Amino acid sequence: MKWVTYCDQSKEKVGWIVELQDEEYMIPLEAAADWFRSQGRDSPPVFESLLSLIEAGEEVSLQWKEIHGSIQSKPEVILEIGVPIRNVKLLAPIPRPPSIRDFYAFEEHVKNARGRRGLEVIPEWYEIPVFYFSNHLAVVGTGESIRRPKLSRCLDYELELACVIGKKGRDIPAEKAADYIFGYMIMNDWSARDLQIKEMKVGLGPAKGKDFATSLGPYLVTPDELDRYKTANGRYRLEMKAYINGNEISSGNFETIYYTFAQMIERASADVTLYPGEILGSGTVGNGCLLELGEEVHRWLEPGDTVSLSVTGMGTLTNNIIE
Amino acid sequence: MKWVTYCDQSKEKVGWIVELQDEEYMIPLEAAADWFRSQGRDSPPVFESLLSLIEAGEEVSLQWKEIHGSIQSKPEVILEIGVPIRNVKLLAPIPRPPSIRDFYAFEEHVKNARGRRGLEVIPEWYEIPVFYFSNHLAVVGTGESIRRPKLSRCLDYELELACVIGKKGRDIPAEKAADYIFGYMIMNDWSARDLQIKEMKVGLGPAKGKDFATSLGPYLVTPDELDRYKTANGRYRLEMKAYINGNEISSGNFETIYYTFAQMIERASADVTLYPGEILGSGTVGNGCLLELGEEVHRWLEPGDTVSLSVTGMGTLTNNIIE
Repeated sequence: MKWVTYCDQSKEKVGWIVELQDEEYMIPLEAAADWFRSQGRDSPPVFESLLSLIEAGEEVSLQWKEIHGSIQSKPEVILEIGVPIRNVKLLAPIPRPPSIRDFYAFEEHVKNARGRRGLEVIPEWYEIPVFYFSNHLAVVGTGESIRRPKLSRCLDYELELACVIGKKGRDIPAEKAADYIFGYMIMNDWSARDLQIKEMKVGLGPAKGKDFATSLGPYLVTPDELDRYKTANGRYRLEMKAYINGNEISSGNFETIYYTFAQMIERASADVTLYPGEILGSGTVGNGCLLELGEEVHRWLEPGDTVSLSVTGMGTLTNNIIE
Repeated sequence: MKWVTYCDQSKEKVGWIVELQDEEYMIPLEAAADWFRSQGRDSPPVFESLLSLIEAGEEVSLQWKEIHGSIQSKPEVILEIGVPIRNVKLLAPIPRPPSIRDFYAFEEHVKNARGRRGLEVIPEWYEIPVFYFSNHLAVVGTGESIRRPKLSRCLDYELELACVIGKKGRDIPAEKAADYIFGYMIMNDWSARDLQIKEMKVGLGPAKGKDFATSLGPYLVTPDELDRYKTANGRYRLEMKAYINGNEISSGNFETIYYTFAQMIERASADVTLYPGEILGSGTVGNGCLLELGEEVHRWLEPGDTVSLSVTGMGTLTNNIIE
């Protein structure tokens, strides 16, 4: 399923996306529950947020998936209760997640980013998947504006995929991690490079250079939707692209990731409890940011620019920059 | 006031501490409300968590402060509704804060920690107060056990003070930051040095080396309680001590801090919204951890050890280590 969170008269609501004749429609959870009850069936609970739906557990998600299946095969129901996606104000699928850990899992990105500073990839990178915590209280959705930090003149995007934890767990081995993944989203880890480079000299990693906005969405896609893109080594073959003002700037593929989300979950859950809704970012795909590509490819982002990130099967996450 | 969160029949409840003849008593919010009503007065709302009390705003806190004032002057009321502190199971004052930013604000700690690696303090440290985000979902209170991470043999404490944001704000200048501070707590930023040193080589700062436990408490102390310790340059003269198994190991003073919490709030709130209950850690006071002191002073922490952090006016935060 492609879950969404949307805004209806200033209230946060939950729905999902279906396709009909190449058009996308959003099925509101409330309308789907009403329709299901009109068929003489008991509806699962209607949740006010996707996070509370995830927290309610797998059984509830499976009940909704069954309803999704019924509706998908009935064009007349889609036309009756679905809302054309262009008429929906989407929010981030989880506007206020419990946390965000952002990893650094693409070898090419590490090589490029360090190479620009004349540094090689250090051996420890190949031993452990490393992450930092980012500000989960500064999440924005598709269509929302990003304010460039006042003191920054080197604003950058980062083209990533994020995974959302589906159930509570601790010390989760990589072999069992699939059971703990609710789904995936596109993530744009906005970065003020000038602030970031300065603070990182002090040695505590990136913080304020990222502590203003992280975009997530447009959909939260369940793993079954991506089955057909699975590779033999447990990755997904998904094209990842970034566009600035409609021009393709970055292009990569998710299958080039060095560490899988399963390995990242093993690392993140070591000696600590993970909770439903916690987010793990993959880190930037190779060439998935301006820092790597250099000014010869594109100048830093400026107010007025629009950045769109597209990933196979995951939709497009678009934001514009404002002063 | 010295606010506390305590556990009553598996439920989280709120209270505060008063002293009577050198004994500490905990006044439960519920009992205080009942008593106040028995005096023919209207009680402010009884909150289920300290976070919701903070979120309710300053006016409500002031109403509770008035009741606190009434009770403090009436020994018979304290003896009637107060619970001797030894009979109270305290929790962290905010068991699930919205976030934790941990700064690096004591020059001596930076000098010592970097000096051990043969490094000088870099100039950028003197220009900006730098922080990293830690795991706010792994908070523990006084009296709770800390599990040593399975792969770590170099477990350390860090003796810090934390400040709690009292109201929503963005781009808060240091001169106005005092209005945004609800109070202060002792913080122990537990650190697995072997994990931390390895991951920090990759450049994203400390994460998994800290991502298992942070202790906060025992009280959340409002700024007025510390007025008498204020120094001319806007700091507080507070002795900070760490004990292992009853032996004093670390000793420092909060007045040696280089950046004030006001400056940290200015930094943290730049280009992003701070919310009530968010936590800023000061970083470790000089000599406030074993990493700085070296094995000649004390070996790394081991299961069976008890660590107590005491700060003038803030109480003592005690945890024992388990396997």
